[in-house]
Amino acid sequence: MLEKIMSPQDLKKLTTDELNILAQEIREAIVYRTSRIGGHTGPNLAVVEMSIALHYVFNSPIDKIIWDVSHQSYPHKIITGRKEGFLNEDKFSYTSGYTDPLESEHDFFNIGHTSTSVSLALGMAKARDLKGEKENIIAVIGDGSLSGGQALEAIDYAGEYEKNLIIVVNDNKYSIAPNHGGLYKSLKDLRESKGVSGNNIFTAFGLEYVYLDEGHDIKKLIEIFEKVKDTKKPIIVHINTTKGKGIDFMEKDPERWHAGAPYNEKNGERDIKPTINFIEKSFFDYLDNNPQGLILNAGVPMSIGFHPDVREKYKEQFVDVGIAEETAVAMSSGAAKNGINPVVSTWATFFQRTYDQLNHDVALNNNPATIVLLGAGVNGLNSKTHVALWDIQMIGHIPNFVYLAPTTQEEYQAMFNYATTQRKNPVAIRAQFNLPATGIKDETDYSKLNRFKVVKKGSKVAIIAIGNLMERAKKLYDLVKEKDNIEITIINPVYLSGIDKEYLDRIEDEHKLVITLEDGAKYQGYGVNIASYLGNKNIDVINLGLEKEFYDNFDPEKLLDENNMSVECMYKLVKKYL
Amino acid sequence: MLEKIMSPQDLKKLTTDELNILAQEIREAIVYRTSRIGGHTGPNLAVVEMSIALHYVFNSPIDKIIWDVSHQSYPHKIITGRKEGFLNEDKFSYTSGYTDPLESEHDFFNIGHTSTSVSLALGMAKARDLKGEKENIIAVIGDGSLSGGQALEAIDYAGEYEKNLIIVVNDNKYSIAPNHGGLYKSLKDLRESKGVSGNNIFTAFGLEYVYLDEGHDIKKLIEIFEKVKDTKKPIIVHINTTKGKGIDFMEKDPERWHAGAPYNEKNGERDIKPTINFIEKSFFDYLDNNPQGLILNAGVPMSIGFHPDVREKYKEQFVDVGIAEETAVAMSSGAAKNGINPVVSTWATFFQRTYDQLNHDVALNNNPATIVLLGAGVNGLNSKTHVALWDIQMIGHIPNFVYLAPTTQEEYQAMFNYATTQRKNPVAIRAQFNLPATGIKDETDYSKLNRFKVVKKGSKVAIIAIGNLMERAKKLYDLVKEKDNIEITIINPVYLSGIDKEYLDRIEDEHKLVITLEDGAKYQGYGVNIASYLGNKNIDVINLGLEKEFYDNFDPEKLLDENNMSVECMYKLVKKYL
Repeated sequence: MLEKIMSPQDLKKLTTDELNILAQEIREAIVYRTSRIGGHTGPNLAVVEMSIALHYVFNSPIDKIIWDVSHQSYPHKIITGRKEGFLNEDKFSYTSGYTDPLESEHDFFNIGHTSTSVSLALGMAKARDLKGEKENIIAVIGDGSLSGGQALEAIDYAGEYEKNLIIVVNDNKYSIAPNHGGLYKSLKDLRESKGVSGNNIFTAFGLEYVYLDEGHDIKKLIEIFEKVKDTKKPIIVHINTTKGKGIDFMEKDPERWHAGAPYNEKNGERDIKPTINFIEKSFFDYLDNNPQGLILNAGVPMSIGFHPDVREKYKEQFVDVGIAEETAVAMSSGAAKNGINPVVSTWATFFQRTYDQLNHDVALNNNPATIVLLGAGVNGLNSKTHVALWDIQMIGHIPNFVYLAPTTQEEYQAMFNYATTQRKNPVAIRAQFNLPATGIKDETDYSKLNRFKVVKKGSKVAIIAIGNLMERAKKLYDLVKEKDNIEITIINPVYLSGIDKEYLDRIEDEHKLVITLEDGAKYQGYGVNIASYLGNKNIDVINLGLEKEFYDNFDPEKLLDENNMSVECMYKLVKKYL
Repeated sequence: MLEKIMSPQDLKKLTTDELNILAQEIREAIVYRTSRIGGHTGPNLAVVEMSIALHYVFNSPIDKIIWDVSHQSYPHKIITGRKEGFLNEDKFSYTSGYTDPLESEHDFFNIGHTSTSVSLALGMAKARDLKGEKENIIAVIGDGSLSGGQALEAIDYAGEYEKNLIIVVNDNKYSIAPNHGGLYKSLKDLRESKGVSGNNIFTAFGLEYVYLDEGHDIKKLIEIFEKVKDTKKPIIVHINTTKGKGIDFMEKDPERWHAGAPYNEKNGERDIKPTINFIEKSFFDYLDNNPQGLILNAGVPMSIGFHPDVREKYKEQFVDVGIAEETAVAMSSGAAKNGINPVVSTWATFFQRTYDQLNHDVALNNNPATIVLLGAGVNGLNSKTHVALWDIQMIGHIPNFVYLAPTTQEEYQAMFNYATTQRKNPVAIRAQFNLPATGIKDETDYSKLNRFKVVKKGSKVAIIAIGNLMERAKKLYDLVKEKDNIEITIINPVYLSGIDKEYLDRIEDEHKLVITLEDGAKYQGYGVNIASYLGNKNIDVINLGLEKEFYDNFDPEKLLDENNMSVECMYKLVKKYL
């Protein structure tokens, strides 16, 4: 059946029976791809029938479907001309895991963060109305994304919008992990009452509402979409679906099958050994040693090692607020104000949602919360929807914040200990997973702010290298020593929120060149502040970092090389100063 | 009665009659202060009785009251030892318009942005629970703040929190302007049904709920707070209040009396003539000339000239989403994607709430939305809760964004025209109110990105001055010409999101020094990128800007002087290069 489907138009010619066969084939295609290269298997299996019905009833791309997070857009992609990315191992790379307007006219946005679809859809609807056009605008949002502030704001505003807007709530009863928040009681009541409960979060926001219990019944899905098509007012279509639908071992363990690595498609086995990394270990040790310890996370507990059994163990000391990053960060300020030293940790890219909370709730109040950003820089998540290549820009300039960049696992641990035992500043830590371990405890006193660590004391050229770029700096040191028999200086700046003025005031005595290395964007990054401070001194400064761009699917080491940070390239820069 | 009140303890000895007299005296004190120096009159008059009852029932500061936005904390301040700031003209400056822990142990946070109280309170509650303590944590949030994503997230999470938390919803039926969003229908139903309507947004979030219709009846307020005191689960106390309560002309026009300048306390007359500034004019012209024009704002329509009659005139083309900045910005991306050129405008400080939407929803998708930031830099809002001294840091580094800094009103207009008629980039404009008018139309083609404007072509020293610092640069030019008979170069950088590399490659031919001037923070600002680019060239660079700090209640010109930007100070820097 899939052979016949080149575009949504082809789908409209099929009978219900044929659509059901198509659903099965799409399901197989999803498993074919994800078992080989990983991906968001569970969420996509939940929306196979819904995606078919949406494209059967609506007329994409005139009617516009906006997928929240868009990690559940695989069936949509298969239907809209990109099936080869799922059927043909050589062509997996032809399509990404998220919607992308560069891939298809049926995709409207690059999305990857949650809870954005309703506000984006409202904007499209408003433009449609001003242009006097009539198409349907459809946002498809998962139950998990509903707890995000941006989604709730938009649902609220939709409650007074007087024109066409269809909000499909894909309720698979699961966020990435179990949902958190009171609204999920309302969703449960609605499911259990088949949509008639008076405890209805959507009508409370002023929206019209319909419910479908049989979320995998294509015929009923088509009926309900036909019913709401061309609605004159915003309406919620609440659909009960099953995460991992159709694959027994996935239906039984939806959290494990939200996303992840390749797997054996017969039994779900994965070739991964569960390990505890040094960041997770720091969290567990902190909670074990500190009855008033508190770790806050927003919807991705497994990313910081809080698997179901661990969550149970620390159920008082660990708080997952659900997808609600703003609340997690603001709560940390409140908790710090009330006398404890809380920690908030999630992926660096998701802290973007909390700039105002970091600045206003935490930093303005100078409360000693600790923020641990996972995967900042080139070695973190590498799709353009999830890159964190401007974390230094986002946090470095905020008054009161101390932003720390460890270069080793031991430094990370010592920084974490400092952060969670002091009362003077909010502290953020740039926790990169691939830091080397030295085996030697770090005894640095990090409360003495803005002091460089001199890793190698040399002359002529000083390299200031952030985080895991220290490894490249050391290789450069070795190369210069080998080739020119000269020892250059290597500096670990430690602090990204300030510079060591005392050291820099003396740097020109022994050096003619400073090179700064950072694995985020160069513009308004860290190194530029060194160039600024030395701007009228008798020493050259070269800042190395990434050009300003949304990089996608990159190889981290290659990206650094391409941005002049290969050891060879740096050697050339250094050479004439030796 | 007020004479006796030195702390909340004194209040507990009074009878209901005496408390009523006290309320009247507090009301008079608020009018005394605000009629003389302005302030948030209406919101404070609405909470006089509520504040008295809260302090009568609860035991502050052991029990902790957190005021959302905290612009309604005047009665609280009067009760907690700061009445002189309201009774004595010479001591008005002893207390600010917002809560501040530096002022009193009864204040827990510096607040000024909306919608933060519930998440901060949840954090305090969680810390209390980990410490094994028992105090009440009380968040007081206005109906207007409820539409903000951070508030909705926190109310949702509170719906599953199993410990003490009291959320007082102060429902005066008004945000700054009329509320927007479907949830306000639920609030209306609840008020009209005296709290028994089944259409209840709070119970839909899983919260317990009580209602008080007589929000100015101290006895009933005391009763309801006694009832919820020591609650074991989060509970909403929904209280119906009247904005401007007690002052006839304020009750009749709550939007006008939300906040503002001094006034005649007898009749409410203000010594202000309504004028349309050049930014407002640009918006009106844009809408008049463009049937598909769209201006989005989040809860502060009057700040951009959209008074009630203007809103009525442009009711299709102007959207106030209520306090929901994230939604406004994301909607602009959706609208731009669907073919129009929308504009979002609000105060620069409030765009902090939208960093992720600017980065992810707008810039990653490269949709041509126009963002107009009001009052960035030292001449904007000058309380530490509302400063915007890092707008350049927040926006400058985002890929795809063009960030423009006009130096004159005519440049602003030309930049706005460019931004709203192109399809290539999102554009942000740093709209400072006090830009000079030249009377000469600006014909620059702003689509040619990152080109400096050479305002004065000279030699030896080049000054690169952003926005309204151009005036200081010109004064320096005159001074050098007068004293040394030398013409220096003056450059308008125009673009904050990139630098003119072509010009900078030639700059050392004629110059020995570059000075950059910006009226925001220097660290990670604009000028540092110039220093970086010229870091290994034969020319000195001095970046001038503000030191990293939360400045409060500053005089803008003095603050610039103190940060080495007086013309005299700059002359000294320049002198040795002449």
